[in-house]
Amino acid sequence: MSSSLQNIILQLQQFWAEKGCLIGQPYYTQVGAGTMNPATFLRVLGPEPWNVAYVEPSVRPDDGRYGENPNRFQMHYQFQIILKPDPGNPVELYLQSLATIGIDPREHDIRLVEDNWEQPAISAWGLGWEIWLDGQEITQFTYFQQVGGQSLDPVSVEITYGLDRILIALNNAPAIWDEPWNDFVKYGEVRRQEEFEHSKYYFEIGDVERLRQMYNLYRAEAEACIAAGLVLPAHDYVLKCSHTFNALDCRGAIGVTERQVFFGQMREMACRVAERYLEQRKELEYPLLKEVREQKTENIQSVLPDYSLISTPKSLLLEIGVEELPAGDLDSAIAQLKGSVPRWLDEELHLEHGPISVSGSPRRLAVMVESLAPHQPDRENLVKGPPAERAFGPDGVPTPAAIGFAKGKGVTPKDLEIREIDGGRYVFAVVKQAGRPAAQVLAESLPGLVAGIKFDKSMRWNDSGVSFSRPLRWFVALFGQTVIPFEYAGLIAGRTTRGLRPYDSPQILIPSAEKYFEIIRKNGIVLDVEERKALITQGVRSLAASVGGEAILPDELLREVANLVEMPTPLLGSFEKEFLALPEDVLISVMKKHQRYFPIRSVGAKQGAPKEYASPLLPNFVIVRNGDEQRIDLVRQGNEHVVRARFTDANFFVREDLKRKLEDFRPRLDTLIFQKKLGSMLDKSGRIENLVGEFILMLDLGADEAVFARRAAHLAKTDLVTRMVVEMTSLQGVIGREYALRSGEAPEVANAIGEQYQPIPKTRPGLALALADRLDSLTGLFAVGLAPTGTKDPFGLRRAAIGVVQPLIEHAIDLDLRAAIQKSASLQPVAVTAEIQTQVLDFITGRLGVLLKDSGYKYDVVEAVLAEQSDRPSAAARAVRQLTAWVARPDWGAILPAYARCVRITRDQKTKFTVKPELLLEEAERELDKTVNDQASVFGGDVDAFLNVVMVLIPSINTFFDKVLVMAEEQAFRENRLGLLQRIGALADGVADLSKLEGF
Amino acid sequence: MSSSLQNIILQLQQFWAEKGCLIGQPYYTQVGAGTMNPATFLRVLGPEPWNVAYVEPSVRPDDGRYGENPNRFQMHYQFQIILKPDPGNPVELYLQSLATIGIDPREHDIRLVEDNWEQPAISAWGLGWEIWLDGQEITQFTYFQQVGGQSLDPVSVEITYGLDRILIALNNAPAIWDEPWNDFVKYGEVRRQEEFEHSKYYFEIGDVERLRQMYNLYRAEAEACIAAGLVLPAHDYVLKCSHTFNALDCRGAIGVTERQVFFGQMREMACRVAERYLEQRKELEYPLLKEVREQKTENIQSVLPDYSLISTPKSLLLEIGVEELPAGDLDSAIAQLKGSVPRWLDEELHLEHGPISVSGSPRRLAVMVESLAPHQPDRENLVKGPPAERAFGPDGVPTPAAIGFAKGKGVTPKDLEIREIDGGRYVFAVVKQAGRPAAQVLAESLPGLVAGIKFDKSMRWNDSGVSFSRPLRWFVALFGQTVIPFEYAGLIAGRTTRGLRPYDSPQILIPSAEKYFEIIRKNGIVLDVEERKALITQGVRSLAASVGGEAILPDELLREVANLVEMPTPLLGSFEKEFLALPEDVLISVMKKHQRYFPIRSVGAKQGAPKEYASPLLPNFVIVRNGDEQRIDLVRQGNEHVVRARFTDANFFVREDLKRKLEDFRPRLDTLIFQKKLGSMLDKSGRIENLVGEFILMLDLGADEAVFARRAAHLAKTDLVTRMVVEMTSLQGVIGREYALRSGEAPEVANAIGEQYQPIPKTRPGLALALADRLDSLTGLFAVGLAPTGTKDPFGLRRAAIGVVQPLIEHAIDLDLRAAIQKSASLQPVAVTAEIQTQVLDFITGRLGVLLKDSGYKYDVVEAVLAEQSDRPSAAARAVRQLTAWVARPDWGAILPAYARCVRITRDQKTKFTVKPELLLEEAERELDKTVNDQASVFGGDVDAFLNVVMVLIPSINTFFDKVLVMAEEQAFRENRLGLLQRIGALADGVADLSKLEGF
Repeated sequence: MSSSLQNIILQLQQFWAEKGCLIGQPYYTQVGAGTMNPATFLRVLGPEPWNVAYVEPSVRPDDGRYGENPNRFQMHYQFQIILKPDPGNPVELYLQSLATIGIDPREHDIRLVEDNWEQPAISAWGLGWEIWLDGQEITQFTYFQQVGGQSLDPVSVEITYGLDRILIALNNAPAIWDEPWNDFVKYGEVRRQEEFEHSKYYFEIGDVERLRQMYNLYRAEAEACIAAGLVLPAHDYVLKCSHTFNALDCRGAIGVTERQVFFGQMREMACRVAERYLEQRKELEYPLLKEVREQKTENIQSVLPDYSLISTPKSLLLEIGVEELPAGDLDSAIAQLKGSVPRWLDEELHLEHGPISVSGSPRRLAVMVESLAPHQPDRENLVKGPPAERAFGPDGVPTPAAIGFAKGKGVTPKDLEIREIDGGRYVFAVVKQAGRPAAQVLAESLPGLVAGIKFDKSMRWNDSGVSFSRPLRWFVALFGQTVIPFEYAGLIAGRTTRGLRPYDSPQILIPSAEKYFEIIRKNGIVLDVEERKALITQGVRSLAASVGGEAILPDELLREVANLVEMPTPLLGSFEKEFLALPEDVLISVMKKHQRYFPIRSVGAKQGAPKEYASPLLPNFVIVRNGDEQRIDLVRQGNEHVVRARFTDANFFVREDLKRKLEDFRPRLDTLIFQKKLGSMLDKSGRIENLVGEFILMLDLGADEAVFARRAAHLAKTDLVTRMVVEMTSLQGVIGREYALRSGEAPEVANAIGEQYQPIPKTRPGLALALADRLDSLTGLFAVGLAPTGTKDPFGLRRAAIGVVQPLIEHAIDLDLRAAIQKSASLQPVAVTAEIQTQVLDFITGRLGVLLKDSGYKYDVVEAVLAEQSDRPSAAARAVRQLTAWVARPDWGAILPAYARCVRITRDQKTKFTVKPELLLEEAERELDKTVNDQASVFGGDVDAFLNVVMVLIPSINTFFDKVLVMAEEQAFRENRLGLLQRIGALADGVADLSKLEGF
Repeated sequence: MSSSLQNIILQLQQFWAEKGCLIGQPYYTQVGAGTMNPATFLRVLGPEPWNVAYVEPSVRPDDGRYGENPNRFQMHYQFQIILKPDPGNPVELYLQSLATIGIDPREHDIRLVEDNWEQPAISAWGLGWEIWLDGQEITQFTYFQQVGGQSLDPVSVEITYGLDRILIALNNAPAIWDEPWNDFVKYGEVRRQEEFEHSKYYFEIGDVERLRQMYNLYRAEAEACIAAGLVLPAHDYVLKCSHTFNALDCRGAIGVTERQVFFGQMREMACRVAERYLEQRKELEYPLLKEVREQKTENIQSVLPDYSLISTPKSLLLEIGVEELPAGDLDSAIAQLKGSVPRWLDEELHLEHGPISVSGSPRRLAVMVESLAPHQPDRENLVKGPPAERAFGPDGVPTPAAIGFAKGKGVTPKDLEIREIDGGRYVFAVVKQAGRPAAQVLAESLPGLVAGIKFDKSMRWNDSGVSFSRPLRWFVALFGQTVIPFEYAGLIAGRTTRGLRPYDSPQILIPSAEKYFEIIRKNGIVLDVEERKALITQGVRSLAASVGGEAILPDELLREVANLVEMPTPLLGSFEKEFLALPEDVLISVMKKHQRYFPIRSVGAKQGAPKEYASPLLPNFVIVRNGDEQRIDLVRQGNEHVVRARFTDANFFVREDLKRKLEDFRPRLDTLIFQKKLGSMLDKSGRIENLVGEFILMLDLGADEAVFARRAAHLAKTDLVTRMVVEMTSLQGVIGREYALRSGEAPEVANAIGEQYQPIPKTRPGLALALADRLDSLTGLFAVGLAPTGTKDPFGLRRAAIGVVQPLIEHAIDLDLRAAIQKSASLQPVAVTAEIQTQVLDFITGRLGVLLKDSGYKYDVVEAVLAEQSDRPSAAARAVRQLTAWVARPDWGAILPAYARCVRITRDQKTKFTVKPELLLEEAERELDKTVNDQASVFGGDVDAFLNVVMVLIPSINTFFDKVLVMAEEQAFRENRLGLLQRIGALADGVADLSKLEGF
């Protein structure tokens, strides 16, 4: 029999009630997620325990699909769990709950996919996973770290089931609509009309002006409530702000910078609500903090074995059991251990050992050390003491200083030795350290080894205070057959590991370190990343070949997929051919990015060839299951359903969008605010068009290119108001290009539109467009005071600046940035002072410097060039390249000093002196003057030209300084000579300031 | 173990899911009740079946008590059921569900108390009950008749559990706060702080101006959605309007007339939403109308007995089984049957019978006819046919008309007889009607007898279309031992009745009509109203005596309570003495009106004595349980809890209110809008004060009275903004009086305040105040165009008008209404034209007329007086009284004609003629003139005076007309005589227009 929505809910309620959860009710105000219900948002704050479960109808206007999409709706049912504190086995509890509602892990592919949850509107974040059932995200599982700006202690576990999707998956249904709500009524019969109507309201009817007013009224009421210390009423109004913001957003009424303002306001209110709540709980003396949790930790002393029994080298195994690590963190942890373990054994523990291997899967990191010595060798350490003359009296009697030192080191004063070091004589103690049993030092030292693993993002989960990528759940530490029972993160190491998730993570005993790999393999786990990658590659290729295609197998995807599974089993999925009519970028993006599938091209495709030459996609893809082949048909169907739903969604957008030409969208840019003072995106679009007009000459575009560039600029931002881009912002430009082609625009125009967001546009019309866009943002946002500060760069202006200089360098185009900024400034609706323009230029130059240094150029070389030429990034880059080559020359040590002498001696002169030939007395100065004059005619103004001149001048310069006294007593001669040297120094003007160079 | 909130919910969900209900979720917008959830509001519309159950957190701002009240909160949890169509046994299902959560009907007092549910904001109504558990209302049970202005077919059964109160009752707890939500957390730990904060927000913080703006924005969005045909989004916004209205109301920001405007707007929107929903369902072809319900009705033919076997007189029993009838409807039904049954037997069925008795209880109406003849006698009916001359030809041969007539009546033409009637000759047929078995005619005729019972408010429940006060659920119809199986309302009569509710309404077989009373009594049911009243009276008196008191036993309460139970068992309850400090009216009102308890005064109280002389109340009361003495302690505790909660509530209000003097509330009247154009209640209050000032002279108040009246007027409306009156509006005036006393005002002032709402104030200051208030409303509201139209009188202006005239009559004060209206008009903030003033006067006169006629005065007499005197109601009433006495005199037939002759002959004259004595020719006219002149000096201007004059004039008038030709040829004489008669006619001017009298 089919599952019904209502049975799932009743079963989950029963399950979690039995686990001690309070069963709550949905909130009476529209929320985007159960997280916003005060039963989560507030109760996770502070020290009080809280376990709750409730349904939450979650309203997300922009997910509305008029009831046409099989699993995407403006309202869906969440089932929300909060476990506070972490019970220690929340993932297992969760998987048990799935079994209760009929999801057998052996019949499906249940995957924990990294998810760094973040909710800026409430200043909250946490780490955890999306939980996938056959490719479908059915649950979000998060260890909350911060909420409302408050760090959480204890951490809460949040489990959010997507009930609608679970229903689809359980019944293996193509869509939700015909699935049972109960035995008599279908889901669609209850909700489909509602989906249509609310979608229509949110997308078409909601009145923007009225919604804005509502938002403002809610905000004012929220502020009044906060001022009165009323936490819950304030929270209600913050929720209403949030929903109204979502409705406005759905009407396309929120501009890019405006969004920041809204988020800032909501975040600020949410944080104050959270603060006030915490104060209140404290005043109430934390009424729910009734009983202290019983401490269940074993006494580690009682399990310590007799290490002295180990007398021969044995293998050492350390298995770190974790909840599913993110793919990147797994790589990083393995790399760190590969570096740290040898160091640790050699330098810290001084233990002899054989080969070391480090391997890992999402759920375990394994370190194996072969032939580890059972005992440390005895060692002598020489410890430096006081100076010899202070250690012994003239009579050779040790002073109190010596006696004290000796005592501190555990030796007698007569054992002290005197040695010479660093030119002084000191007493030394020879401290003997007896070697200890390896097992003992390992037990003391293993926690440190684990603690030494660091991650970009790490989290806490229990009261040990330990941080890790995801919670640590067990340790296996065996030295031969002996357990090393160290304690860390509230766990005590033993010999029990856990098997595969699809098999319910059975407990598996490891009798000895030596048996580990064999047992792990017997339990179906492929522990080595490279082995998993090889298995996947082979499987994917052969499945692709089976449908006459070649898989798209990019390395980063392969690496990620390999790190998502312990037992990889590739399988082939397919989708309806009709979807191939969608833009290829959309298809690939969905398969690769969203679903981690390998797309397949028909044979003949040239991997890496430009898209226009690539063979078309096939309606197939390869999934990699975590598990064996059992019920693999179910897994396939589930995954295919997901892809179908996603493509249906994209299809809906594209179909809706293509009812009009791209150009027809343009007027609606007026509804998108770019920035309050800088106007709408339509305004910005107009400025870009004008600026591109200016750039045609400056970039020296041809006549055709000019036409394309102008047209592309006209249409550039238009795709921002298409539904497809509103939905998947990452496709901006890609969709613009695609729709331009389908609207009959020239391919060159389409390409330029696509290129505007690429770091380095390939075509010159694309370049002109990208530069205009980026300079407009820089100039405008600086002018209204929104330049980046500190680490804050909400509008991505650093990226924009790099996006200005990098393409110019790549295309080797000598655009005069100062002039370009001036043009852009003149187009802004606000005044842009010369000072601001200089700030913009300096900002761009700054990024140029970083860019060049990041490319490996030396700091001093970059500084030297940028000090003299920053207006023209392309030229500057060329100069840096040239100067770098010069600096690398073996004779550079002769070249730089010669020039430097000329500059250094004239550096402090305030006046520029003119050389008067009649005052050139000495042969050497006449000779130098002549050479300078000769070279002036061949001087080309770049680094090479300048330094070639210097090369020629070197002998004359050296002779000059040998023979001539520059600082002659008579002023006229002195000034004439200084003038000559100044002339040489000035050869570098506009080229480079060599005084910035090392060794100048 | 204690019940927990969450177990109750889980159990109810399970129970109703098993009964086929869809388990739904609370709505995501604040609603005042589960009824507003579209799963009820919309789904009850139209023909589709719908069975649903869901929790609904219901928000009612003005129920907020800062978490201080044991069972009253701004948010409570409802559990809502809709059964559509009526399954036939919804009350039984409901009682089963109570058993599921642990409520044993034998251990409690479960009572179904009449409730005419009405929700004007959504144009909805239905009939049903509040269900009381030991005095606590725990559920509303309603058969919806109309929703959103749409008549429902089929009718839906709505069951709304109050979960919080059920939890209290189940655990026999003093308050909700310490009761378990689940095994770990208490209800108060989840919700108490929230109650405090929201109460504070709704009562103190919510910004009136912003809330008004929100309401307007919501309304505009709702209108936009309706215009776009979007039912659910529109409904959402209507709900938001409604919640915002409630919040405004809670801030005391809604005036009396403004409230009507809001309700009108919301109702209008709700109706359009409902309309549009119905259209939509029709367009969708009613998708849920999947299967036609199986017809389970028995075939009545198969159960028909052989009536010919009955040959001797037997008793006839008709028991009509119903769900609990309202007390008034029970009385009415019994009275109707007492009238209709004899008529029915005698005139319709022609059956001989012995004594008839009609009795009844809330669940049954019983008609017993003793010795009913087994058979009708044969009868002859004479039926009138065509006129004799058209029936037979001159030859005596019957015409086709006669033949046809005879055939139609089943006789031959020669059987026709000719008889004289009404002066004509007709043919008659003697139709013989053979008597039929009584049982047979009863079976045909009993449905009609039942259908003949009518109620003020009746309802439909199933597809029989039958209306009744509450659903009919069974019939017992026995003629001796034989069942009369008639069919009505989808039921077939049998011999099975049902026992008492507390015993689970067991089925009881009645072997014969004769055994009925005995069996009913054996089953604990007291069938006779008077017997129940006697039992109750006796029990209540003896319980009151047991605490040294006398019960307050008003007849209407006794009658109601007697009609609420089938097995009355009085028991004594008590409450904390502290509550006696509350105003007595509050205490009595709560006990009598809300709880149907009998309050108790200490002995010595004089029943009916004015309050100030009555003995004080005791902290006791008598409850009447429906059932026996089992677990009567539980029932008592439950009831005491309810009273405590209610008194606590009142205490809260009174305590809060008494923190200030009554006068201090006055400025807040500014926040209560009386009517937009007429200003706030403070403005009205000012006008009343001024008007009372004017009335001091007009009503001839003494100096002291004047002082009291002015002060009372100043404070009159102040109690409207006290919490107690905001909560229980019916206590307006009563509370004003009470608080005035406690604020140290003079008793006379306090009494006047109290009297302003009484139909007839007893004191003259009270009278002045009441008149000023009522005239102000009349004048003002007429001026702004809000005079009553048709049956609509939303501001109660008819009552106000009666409230003007009746006290004036009772106090016999000759106030000049026209002048009073003029004064009031001059105080209004809007222009009140003379025309409007006349309209007001006419309106009041109209009510005066109705009042007098309703008092039994003849129509013509009232008209006659009011035609001449309407400005002074008191005088008019006196005149009507006098004239009525005159009209009743035996010699009136001589008095009126004499006067009438004088008037009739002069009626058409346009001119008033003056009598010139020198033109009086005849003796008779001189005589008449002289008598008129003589009487003029004694004439007092009222009816008696006038008619006494007429009495004296009669002989002279009669002689005059005998001897004198009025219409003399010569103009001068003619006019002189007419002048004389006009003078007599004019004696009635300002007294009465006798031409309106019958017989004039």
